[in-house]
Amino acid sequence: MTPHETLLDSYARLTVRTGLNIQKGQQLLITAPLDAVPLVRRITDHAYRAGASLVTTFYADDNATLSRFAHAPDEAFDTAPGWLFNGMAEAFRSGAARLAIAGEDPALLAGQDPNKLARANKARSKAYRPALELITGFFINWCVIAAATPAWAKSVFPGLPEHEAIDRLWRAIFACTKADQPDPVAAWEKHNTELARRTGFLNQQRYRALRYSGPGVDLMLGLADDHIWKGGGGKSLNGVFCNVNIPTEEVFTAPHKDRVDGTLRSTKPLSYQGSLIDGIRVRFAGGRIVEMSAEKGEDAFRNLINTDEGAARLGEVALVPHSSPISASGIIFNNTLFDENAASHVAVGQSYTENIRDGSNRTQDELTAMGANTSLVHVDWMVGSGELDIDGILQDGSAQALMRQGEWAI
Amino acid sequence: MTPHETLLDSYARLTVRTGLNIQKGQQLLITAPLDAVPLVRRITDHAYRAGASLVTTFYADDNATLSRFAHAPDEAFDTAPGWLFNGMAEAFRSGAARLAIAGEDPALLAGQDPNKLARANKARSKAYRPALELITGFFINWCVIAAATPAWAKSVFPGLPEHEAIDRLWRAIFACTKADQPDPVAAWEKHNTELARRTGFLNQQRYRALRYSGPGVDLMLGLADDHIWKGGGGKSLNGVFCNVNIPTEEVFTAPHKDRVDGTLRSTKPLSYQGSLIDGIRVRFAGGRIVEMSAEKGEDAFRNLINTDEGAARLGEVALVPHSSPISASGIIFNNTLFDENAASHVAVGQSYTENIRDGSNRTQDELTAMGANTSLVHVDWMVGSGELDIDGILQDGSAQALMRQGEWAI
Repeated sequence: MTPHETLLDSYARLTVRTGLNIQKGQQLLITAPLDAVPLVRRITDHAYRAGASLVTTFYADDNATLSRFAHAPDEAFDTAPGWLFNGMAEAFRSGAARLAIAGEDPALLAGQDPNKLARANKARSKAYRPALELITGFFINWCVIAAATPAWAKSVFPGLPEHEAIDRLWRAIFACTKADQPDPVAAWEKHNTELARRTGFLNQQRYRALRYSGPGVDLMLGLADDHIWKGGGGKSLNGVFCNVNIPTEEVFTAPHKDRVDGTLRSTKPLSYQGSLIDGIRVRFAGGRIVEMSAEKGEDAFRNLINTDEGAARLGEVALVPHSSPISASGIIFNNTLFDENAASHVAVGQSYTENIRDGSNRTQDELTAMGANTSLVHVDWMVGSGELDIDGILQDGSAQALMRQGEWAI
Repeated sequence: MTPHETLLDSYARLTVRTGLNIQKGQQLLITAPLDAVPLVRRITDHAYRAGASLVTTFYADDNATLSRFAHAPDEAFDTAPGWLFNGMAEAFRSGAARLAIAGEDPALLAGQDPNKLARANKARSKAYRPALELITGFFINWCVIAAATPAWAKSVFPGLPEHEAIDRLWRAIFACTKADQPDPVAAWEKHNTELARRTGFLNQQRYRALRYSGPGVDLMLGLADDHIWKGGGGKSLNGVFCNVNIPTEEVFTAPHKDRVDGTLRSTKPLSYQGSLIDGIRVRFAGGRIVEMSAEKGEDAFRNLINTDEGAARLGEVALVPHSSPISASGIIFNNTLFDENAASHVAVGQSYTENIRDGSNRTQDELTAMGANTSLVHVDWMVGSGELDIDGILQDGSAQALMRQGEWAI
């Protein structure tokens, strides 16, 4: 094996053992870009070695997506493969694990008709909902990782020749995911212990809200009743301890959907369904985004928050120190899996049931009354920087310094 | 475009227009080997240009299949992706069209444990049945074509360097499918007219049986009551005229499952689920194979006919002149889509409902009483040669010369 192949194999093994923790007899569903074939083959090998009964991979081809936008009739953009997503949901209900390999061109659909894009995304989100709920509800062990593809690498390192850009991006991925460490599985056990210590502290405080202040930022962000902070590995409802994001540096919980007020701005670009969005500024009132602008991709962001009522409200708040390894790499990845772990962030849309105490045993009405948000979408965007201060507001109204200039103050 | 790309594009257009006849607003499901990406992209383009609303491609990777046989636990081989096949069936019921692109390595699984192979194939056939019934019942427009992949090309031209073998195989595919003619769509219209003339004659005769004689062959093959000969393009129950095989040279109908007696032998190899089977000799009694041997792949053939009761009986009989263009190419393709059109053949397993008059409006009990066969499988094998004579036996018992030394006598 070449040095790259050795690292790729180590990354594949980490994904199967630590990310998914595949169980004997379990099926595995993978979605991946066509350029990820060499990684998928190694993951497939490790999954079968770990006892998987069947690995099924769905390859996505950016070319086919562009062909659709170029040639399909207008009515086509309200169509989504509901039959496929229903099949996936059936697999999850029967105990299959799920791996998503990111690596798409962050600006694939830039310049396409925003109306077609919005309709296609909405149709897809709606059709995907039954399957997505089993993932966000943590009913199964799942994981998201990334593969360096030519189009993504070129967007991250536009000045480099393609081959060099891909190589640089792979090295960054291996470093951020600890796949280049001598024992990646052990390194993740240590990392998880540290994240658990942080969530343990936060869960003891029972904050009522978080207060954000910084340039262009003055926000009171209420937290859901009986919210729970999570971070690092966790046990899915099928009883399997897994790490749903590789890498992950965040601790996160559920905001109260009706109790967010003030101004907030994004500090890194985000890629949403092929559109690059940057320089977001919003004002919240009663939990809802009531004013918005963006320096880039404003249409895409507006269409996103107009998807449904919950898409204009928050479903997740996450804290990441400005000095995280991913931030320290100095690379803007144009990919949420990495960029969200370089900075504190929020997500518009659907909340995670696991962020509410005993959430999976509560009805939707109970969850809503506690402040959990409901939406077809869940999209993270980065708000952290070296200039952001965050206070925890205790039940008695007093403030506790949580982060100062982007670093933990606790 | 290079000359090869021009031919590939012509082949893609023929597939979409003549093979599938994709309708405006229709979804399309494609299954294809990973090596067929360039062809799939051109088909996707033509499908969207023809008005398809969504094209979804499932790529199969021979590497992943081998990885499973190498590493998965023994229990895994009773598992199949029923959830995926159920999803496909849902798509077909909602009106989606189906394209299968063949191109697999004909001997991929040679040397694997026959027990694991038989169990995996049976689990797959069983799980696929709901989707397959919508295809064999002609509820939707569908089509099977082929793509020249490295592994397949090397098995057809073992003496040539890989690149040359692939090139030779593509040229043979373009020639056999008429994709290299100036107007392939018009050439297929003419071809279909000729096949329709032949089936028209056969349907007028109302044969009771066919009698086969030749070296090692002495067979009386009863036909199903109210059987119908089909060949070339036809109208699916969703009202779309399509050509389900490109190429196709055969005219075919349903044998009577209980009225086949005597001896028969294969004249070309067949590839079944990764095993090459050659030199089959069988004896039928009361419709059932009661003695069998094969020079190569005997285990695979035995496992096939032991799949269920119907797998040891005939579900299709097809007539192809020995001088067909595919036979004249002199190439043994190790792929049924081509080889079945080079020689008269039979299939063990499931019958086609369309081969019984008014078949789709009859109950399963009625169809069975008329002689239609039921099975999880449907596998063709070639029995034609330049030494085979076939007579049509009329209702009064008199014989009519149908084929002499492999050529039409009518």
